[in-house]
Amino acid sequence: MSLFDFLVGKPLATSEERAEHIGPIAGIPVFGLDALSSAAYGPEAALTLLIPLGLAGLAYIIPISLAIILLLTILYFSYRQTIDVYPHGGGSYTVASENLGATAGLLAAAALMIDYILNVAVGISAGVGALVSAFPSLQPHTLALCLLILFLLTVINTRGVRDTGNAFLIPTYLFIGTLLVVILVGGVRTVLAHGHPTPIIAPPILPKAAMMLTPWLLLKVFASGCTAMTGVEAVSNGVGAFREPTQPNAKRTLTIIIALLAIFLGGIAVLCRAYNIGATDPAGAGYQSILSQLIGAVLGRGWFYYVGMGSILLVLALSANTSFADFPRLTRAIAQSNYLPHVFLVRGRRLLYSYGIYALVGFSAILLIAFSGITDRLIPLFAIGAFLAFTLSQAGMVMHWLRKPGPRSIHRILINGIGALATGVTLIVVLIAKFVDGAWITTLLVPLLIFLMIAVRRHYEAVSREIQINRPILLENLNRPLIVVPVDRWSRITEKGLRFALKLSDEIEAVHIDTEEEHNDLEQVWQRDVAGPIAEAGLAVPKLVCLPSPYRFVLAPLVDYILQLESQFPDRQIAVLVPQLIVKRWWQAPLHNQRAQLLKLLLIMRGNQRISIINIPWYL
Amino acid sequence: MSLFDFLVGKPLATSEERAEHIGPIAGIPVFGLDALSSAAYGPEAALTLLIPLGLAGLAYIIPISLAIILLLTILYFSYRQTIDVYPHGGGSYTVASENLGATAGLLAAAALMIDYILNVAVGISAGVGALVSAFPSLQPHTLALCLLILFLLTVINTRGVRDTGNAFLIPTYLFIGTLLVVILVGGVRTVLAHGHPTPIIAPPILPKAAMMLTPWLLLKVFASGCTAMTGVEAVSNGVGAFREPTQPNAKRTLTIIIALLAIFLGGIAVLCRAYNIGATDPAGAGYQSILSQLIGAVLGRGWFYYVGMGSILLVLALSANTSFADFPRLTRAIAQSNYLPHVFLVRGRRLLYSYGIYALVGFSAILLIAFSGITDRLIPLFAIGAFLAFTLSQAGMVMHWLRKPGPRSIHRILINGIGALATGVTLIVVLIAKFVDGAWITTLLVPLLIFLMIAVRRHYEAVSREIQINRPILLENLNRPLIVVPVDRWSRITEKGLRFALKLSDEIEAVHIDTEEEHNDLEQVWQRDVAGPIAEAGLAVPKLVCLPSPYRFVLAPLVDYILQLESQFPDRQIAVLVPQLIVKRWWQAPLHNQRAQLLKLLLIMRGNQRISIINIPWYL
Repeated sequence: MSLFDFLVGKPLATSEERAEHIGPIAGIPVFGLDALSSAAYGPEAALTLLIPLGLAGLAYIIPISLAIILLLTILYFSYRQTIDVYPHGGGSYTVASENLGATAGLLAAAALMIDYILNVAVGISAGVGALVSAFPSLQPHTLALCLLILFLLTVINTRGVRDTGNAFLIPTYLFIGTLLVVILVGGVRTVLAHGHPTPIIAPPILPKAAMMLTPWLLLKVFASGCTAMTGVEAVSNGVGAFREPTQPNAKRTLTIIIALLAIFLGGIAVLCRAYNIGATDPAGAGYQSILSQLIGAVLGRGWFYYVGMGSILLVLALSANTSFADFPRLTRAIAQSNYLPHVFLVRGRRLLYSYGIYALVGFSAILLIAFSGITDRLIPLFAIGAFLAFTLSQAGMVMHWLRKPGPRSIHRILINGIGALATGVTLIVVLIAKFVDGAWITTLLVPLLIFLMIAVRRHYEAVSREIQINRPILLENLNRPLIVVPVDRWSRITEKGLRFALKLSDEIEAVHIDTEEEHNDLEQVWQRDVAGPIAEAGLAVPKLVCLPSPYRFVLAPLVDYILQLESQFPDRQIAVLVPQLIVKRWWQAPLHNQRAQLLKLLLIMRGNQRISIINIPWYL
Repeated sequence: MSLFDFLVGKPLATSEERAEHIGPIAGIPVFGLDALSSAAYGPEAALTLLIPLGLAGLAYIIPISLAIILLLTILYFSYRQTIDVYPHGGGSYTVASENLGATAGLLAAAALMIDYILNVAVGISAGVGALVSAFPSLQPHTLALCLLILFLLTVINTRGVRDTGNAFLIPTYLFIGTLLVVILVGGVRTVLAHGHPTPIIAPPILPKAAMMLTPWLLLKVFASGCTAMTGVEAVSNGVGAFREPTQPNAKRTLTIIIALLAIFLGGIAVLCRAYNIGATDPAGAGYQSILSQLIGAVLGRGWFYYVGMGSILLVLALSANTSFADFPRLTRAIAQSNYLPHVFLVRGRRLLYSYGIYALVGFSAILLIAFSGITDRLIPLFAIGAFLAFTLSQAGMVMHWLRKPGPRSIHRILINGIGALATGVTLIVVLIAKFVDGAWITTLLVPLLIFLMIAVRRHYEAVSREIQINRPILLENLNRPLIVVPVDRWSRITEKGLRFALKLSDEIEAVHIDTEEEHNDLEQVWQRDVAGPIAEAGLAVPKLVCLPSPYRFVLAPLVDYILQLESQFPDRQIAVLVPQLIVKRWWQAPLHNQRAQLLKLLLIMRGNQRISIINIPWYL
């Protein structure tokens, strides 16, 4: 097995596709990491905005979490219906374009692509951020660490969906297990202590209230908390990756993910309230994350704490992986409608849409480099795309039920309608709350992307119209082409080219460019060794054309002559025969002129439909 | 006139060559800058080694300068004879290889190439060094300034010999004028003051003697002073650049250059002695160059001082230019004997051997970057090549006279023999004196270069033997080739390719790679729109071959099939017809797969003499 095969995996046959499909156990790491890991930063983001309210602020985390869980529940039911209707994957793009028209589809496509790319950058930078706050000496290497993790994720993901799921099983379930244990133990202690348990390690004391709650602040808190919901649509988009029975498996996976996320969000909110845990200033000296405080308060700082914190770090970094699973499926769907380059349709050796992965990695790397790998700068751009996509997807489902009414349509319209309304309102809230901080960038990028996609499709359609053919092959005017053979001097290479020309046509022009640089007896040699023998054999004699080149240019006069010939014979095909020396070793290449290569390039650039190039290689 | 033409000059016709030739007035800047500018660093290098002797050391500068002037005079007469014998340019390479054999020629070639490249690096870095000592704030930009000057020299030189001579006229003659005035005025004052003139600005007082003169020190002083002689062979190498009467013009130029250099060296030595001017420590705080002290002492620090110093800076930097004039002529001469790539034979739009210039610039840039543009680090590598070349050239001339005795042969043998002996001894002295400091690098590079040149020639000779032909064209077995047309689907591009194939041959295989990715009805369409109509027209029907590709690779199975076909038909030529989409705008390229390009590359890499590639472009 070669090193390449070892790293990337052996190629998979198309027929092996079924075996690459996954069930819920692997489905949770593959499609759920994004959603689940957001439990580690969603509540934190909301509580950070509540810091100025002091202890009083904690009172608001439970209702806000409830609102978010409610929204999540609505989305859950809504997406179950999407999975039912789209067994091959019903991402927002598919749903919106099929039900709301092409423009809505493009809007969803642009929003989702931006959000998937942002998710990679945010996930990796958040993971590295957590690592750096544990080991401050790594600080100067933030960007390098981000790019390293991006590279590792790329290598793991190019092995295919199943291998990726297996690789992420342990950290994911460790993370889930840790959080569940903390919530369970903390919950039981809270009940036993009538709502006021004693922390094992006391969290930092919250500062005094510095301001009062305003509706605007509440909106911003809600908008920040909503980042916890990104990644929820991953399962419905990736239905096609599940094994038979596809839809039940996908729905089971979605149920587990949403249930776990709801438990996490609810549990964290309740325990924060019970243990009086609030956010600390992330820029301040004594910063400690909510989950770190929580685990310490409930279970102390034993080995469990470190295992738990480790799994959180890992899962945050790996949450980027959801994008790796979904982005290529999304770009494939868009490319199928000709809105993106067709390379996104090509499945690589491991049955993945490899170019989607390359594009995702490329753009994420650009983002990480542009924002120096710092999460805080990336966050405001994030979540808008997700909510725009949610809204369009739910609205599309409403339209679907309206068009194809079936049993329990009203019920279904209601569920998707509430989903669309809730996410639509949330979108507006998030957009207003974050606009100045960076959401405007996303708002600009979406129309730009849409413009590009429309341009791509227009190009494909023009090409398709141009090359499309609905009739039998034309068979008139099949006379042999006029062949032009550039001749430098009489050599075996020239002989090979001329012989090939003689096999193909009876009208051959040998063109010699005379740069006056050296004495050349080509004309005599030609007469003696070429024209003479050919005439004797009764074949059509090739014509030798000598073109003077006072400025010593070789290619320009040759191409000019060929173009002139082409306009002289408007009904003939012209084939230019280019003999080319192929060297055995790379270092020999500079010893020979690269005129053959340049001539081919020039002919393609300046040529037209009636000029073909025949390449005769001569292997040394 | 385009910007490119404005910068580089309009192309020159071969017939305009005569007009590009120069006389002595332009010849001095073009071929003399290297030799003349060394008056600015040769004496300085010698005097720097005499610093430890204090005032007493000054006594030795006159005899050492006399020795150098004597050597110069010997070389002068010696090179006059070379110019007589070689009217098209008698560089050391030509003289040594014609008279002493190929190995001696290669030795001279390698030595000269290295020295010309070093001369560029040393000249530029010395000029920038002088500039930096005048404006210390430029220090951090030393390397950038060096590369900038290299770039400017390149642009000026790509305009051609005549334009270059004109561009350098003013600084060169300003430099010559300044030095002559200083030597004349200083000389008159010295005579009037009976050998002890009063300086206008007193030079720094020389330190007390710290050591005694040893023979070894004297040798090192002489070796350092000899750097003043590099560049002397430029004229005899570039005879071909002079206008009619060629040889007298070249000899006149050589006479002027050598006479001026001798006056400079002698005058500087005498005046240093008279005014008690010694070198100051270049690394010390109060550093001032010899010429700066000299001009100040003789004429004070008025406008004349600044004009003079400015012209010295400029001429030092421009002395690199001699290499630009001579290196391409040298590489051309070597390439003519197949020891260097033939591109060095190509004359560019301005009648220059452009690739020689590119190579010179490339290697000088590497040297400047590797040594950070610092002169002191480069100097020890320098001058060895020049003296090796001098010696070989004089020895070659001795051999020439021995073989072709003529009138005054004995006299001529004597002159060249003394030259060879003197430069040979100097070479050994310089080599010993500088070996540890860096001359060993040159000593290693010379055999490496010789090895490379021999390898290049061996390759050319093998190719030449292989492609050489001394018989008439073979006309047997001129049957039409077997044509392979890769077919994706039935489109107008496929039609064009097939029609072309039908024009060329009656044996066509259309090969379709089935990746099982999509439903494809190619076989029915083929039967209906291609095979059917062609059969009806009574033509030979192309065969459709469908190859399954379970791993979705497209090109590998195609190339495999073609190679298999090739071994099935050992006496047939196989032509692979590659239809290729040509986009109108660069940004459209990523929208189409680049399989045509890759297929051509793979076929050339894995193919053989019997496989040709026919490229059918389809312009959108």
